[in-house]
Amino acid sequence: MNALDPLFAPRSIALIGASHSEMKLGGVVMKNLLGFNGMLYPVNPKYDELMGVKAFAEVSDIPQPVDLALILRPAQEVPGILKEFRGKAKCVIVMSSGFAEVGETGLQDEVRRIGEEAGFRIVGPNCMGLYNPHRKLDTFFLPPSRLHRPKRGNVAVISQSGAILSCLLGAMKEARAGVSKAIGYGNAVDVAESDLFEYLVGDDKTEVVVSYVESVRDGRRFVQSARELSERKPLLVLKSGKGASGQAAAFSHTGRLAGRYEVFHSIAAQWGIREVADFDELLDAAKALAYQRPSAGGRVCIITNGGGSGVLAADECMRQGLQVPSIAEEIRDRLHHLFPDFFVVNNPVDLTAQVKDKDYVAALGELRDEYDGFVIIALPNVFGITENLGALLASAKAGLGRPIVAHIAESGITGKIRNLLERAGIPVYASPERAVRGLKALLSHGRVAK
Amino acid sequence: MNALDPLFAPRSIALIGASHSEMKLGGVVMKNLLGFNGMLYPVNPKYDELMGVKAFAEVSDIPQPVDLALILRPAQEVPGILKEFRGKAKCVIVMSSGFAEVGETGLQDEVRRIGEEAGFRIVGPNCMGLYNPHRKLDTFFLPPSRLHRPKRGNVAVISQSGAILSCLLGAMKEARAGVSKAIGYGNAVDVAESDLFEYLVGDDKTEVVVSYVESVRDGRRFVQSARELSERKPLLVLKSGKGASGQAAAFSHTGRLAGRYEVFHSIAAQWGIREVADFDELLDAAKALAYQRPSAGGRVCIITNGGGSGVLAADECMRQGLQVPSIAEEIRDRLHHLFPDFFVVNNPVDLTAQVKDKDYVAALGELRDEYDGFVIIALPNVFGITENLGALLASAKAGLGRPIVAHIAESGITGKIRNLLERAGIPVYASPERAVRGLKALLSHGRVAK
Repeated sequence: MNALDPLFAPRSIALIGASHSEMKLGGVVMKNLLGFNGMLYPVNPKYDELMGVKAFAEVSDIPQPVDLALILRPAQEVPGILKEFRGKAKCVIVMSSGFAEVGETGLQDEVRRIGEEAGFRIVGPNCMGLYNPHRKLDTFFLPPSRLHRPKRGNVAVISQSGAILSCLLGAMKEARAGVSKAIGYGNAVDVAESDLFEYLVGDDKTEVVVSYVESVRDGRRFVQSARELSERKPLLVLKSGKGASGQAAAFSHTGRLAGRYEVFHSIAAQWGIREVADFDELLDAAKALAYQRPSAGGRVCIITNGGGSGVLAADECMRQGLQVPSIAEEIRDRLHHLFPDFFVVNNPVDLTAQVKDKDYVAALGELRDEYDGFVIIALPNVFGITENLGALLASAKAGLGRPIVAHIAESGITGKIRNLLERAGIPVYASPERAVRGLKALLSHGRVAK
Repeated sequence: MNALDPLFAPRSIALIGASHSEMKLGGVVMKNLLGFNGMLYPVNPKYDELMGVKAFAEVSDIPQPVDLALILRPAQEVPGILKEFRGKAKCVIVMSSGFAEVGETGLQDEVRRIGEEAGFRIVGPNCMGLYNPHRKLDTFFLPPSRLHRPKRGNVAVISQSGAILSCLLGAMKEARAGVSKAIGYGNAVDVAESDLFEYLVGDDKTEVVVSYVESVRDGRRFVQSARELSERKPLLVLKSGKGASGQAAAFSHTGRLAGRYEVFHSIAAQWGIREVADFDELLDAAKALAYQRPSAGGRVCIITNGGGSGVLAADECMRQGLQVPSIAEEIRDRLHHLFPDFFVVNNPVDLTAQVKDKDYVAALGELRDEYDGFVIIALPNVFGITENLGALLASAKAGLGRPIVAHIAESGITGKIRNLLERAGIPVYASPERAVRGLKALLSHGRVAK
């Protein structure tokens, strides 16, 4: 039993600041909690019931201790409410804002102190709460009509910023990437990245962790927990507040100092903690790791029907430290027999504008044991590429056993091919370089099989 | 009269290899040429008419010299066809492949020699041809159902690779960016990037040039023409073949050596030729420059309702060499009066999750004269942001007179807001960093007004 189990998998929840109206945040959270399977205790002195659930006037009216209390009341009321939960909650999420981020450090210190004295863990304040689709748990104050939730999956999303959390989740939904747990921990008076990393080491629903970090409270513990997690599961960290203006912005955002980025960066590099450069790189890597298991090696094969796109992919491989080795003589001969003279049997393999769907599968069939990962590039503006490419590549992937990603250029049939590929577990990207960065995530975190 | 006018604005066109069927490349080109306003002479010995147009059995049957001849016949036939056009064409596009890119350098040399002797300019071989929506001219062998053409606009797209050309055009269509001229010049026996740069200096339909270059034939002339063009119009260059594998791939692609990238890079930097790093950066910059006129300065104001997103944008400004200066004291006071206490009146301005549409306009109104460019970030997963944001920002932009870009995070109403903003000329990007890179393109190419 981990101290954060009541947070991520509570059996009972109290919601302080529940409302009957979905036009209010307390109503949005209430509505989102209706899917929860455990006991739900909304607290609101004005109603006997809210959305069909019996409501309680006071915290003291709740008939039993809860695993998780959610507080969504003005900042000034929060200390009083927290005290009422002494001995009656294991974890508390303070979603309210109005603390250190607006200069109210005294109030925030009081929240921390009450939590320490009462012995419960606190997430927040000024935070978005959590989403655990494996338990149908959703404490967000954003309605599903505005933030489309990703399906259940294997990626844990850990973000200090609720904004970035919601942007990542929206983008992951769009990318068809599934989530194991998502949490926005805000000002982090208690629960912070290190606690979450430690928890996720043992979480069997989580295979990948992506983390947005503005400030680190305890550098030593951060490194230790990040390393421990990295050894078991791919961990990607996006650190923000890199320049003077970013650091100032991060400070007004959560009231915590971002610290000198150079220090963070060199420590991360030294200890093998994988940093990504920006939002898109985090998303692209998360998508790849949501779709496929990482594996070892750095030898990449590029199969394209657009010469220039293959060159851009090869360039990006170089930048990412991946190799694009030539095709072995004997396999080259076999491919020359299979293909017309004008196909370029090299790496990248260029199937040219005269390509047919099946040519990709033929090339993959010959090259599958020679490389560690594959980039498929299809420009479907030529007739030889049809919607069948999706189904053909899906079958080819089934027995491949190595990472494979795709770039499908914009065209009249791109959406259909993308659907088929992504349903088959091949992540599709909008440019050659992004596809290579997706593959890089899959090849960076793999271990050589024993 | 420029020597390339007959290429970009021909009054008459001959198509050698025309076909009656849209299932053949010669039929696709024929179909695409039907929109052309001038004289069209399809050549095909088997038909008297093709798609309603009188056809000719031989080149010699064409009753008058043409401005432009398009050749779409097997490589071995090309020299013979070219000879027939001696004195009967001003420009020729050889779309056929099967030349240096498959080792047929002798055949390619012959093509060059014939062109020199005959005195006409040759584009290609192994190329995609051109698209000039201002003249309804489209010689591509890709049907509109597969490659959606961008509308007419101010961006010229110059690409050695037909693949990259088609990817860029497809993506620009998706980005609602308009095109003045687009050309894929392939193996470049004659017309190459320098000729095109020189031509575009004086082309009044073109305000921006984006260029994908694999190899440069004449480095001195490249630098000279790129500089001359850069001084008049924003020019963005994506150079590929950067690493050993990319260079090898570029060689098999067009049969020209990519050259040492380091040399290219240092020369470009020295002469102020703006390089972009990858496909996405080229697209994002082209989109910004298609929407708005560039202007001078580097002082950026970020207005957001998501704290973390603002921090990422500020970080990217730093990486791009842009400043994010604090708000002047007196304006800060005015904004504090307008806004609730918990809004963070700083740069970035953080309107928080409690934002309303009109807050963006209020902030812009106070800050408009203080900064050189604006990044609007909206996370429309809170109720306070509605579809009205599009119309409000559109009006605010009308009198702004400075570059403004937006990042609208993924949500249930993002598509509608994006439509409104982009119709009003505000480019929308999928991440804070991409929005900043778009703004950077607008601020890099501006000149201080006299």
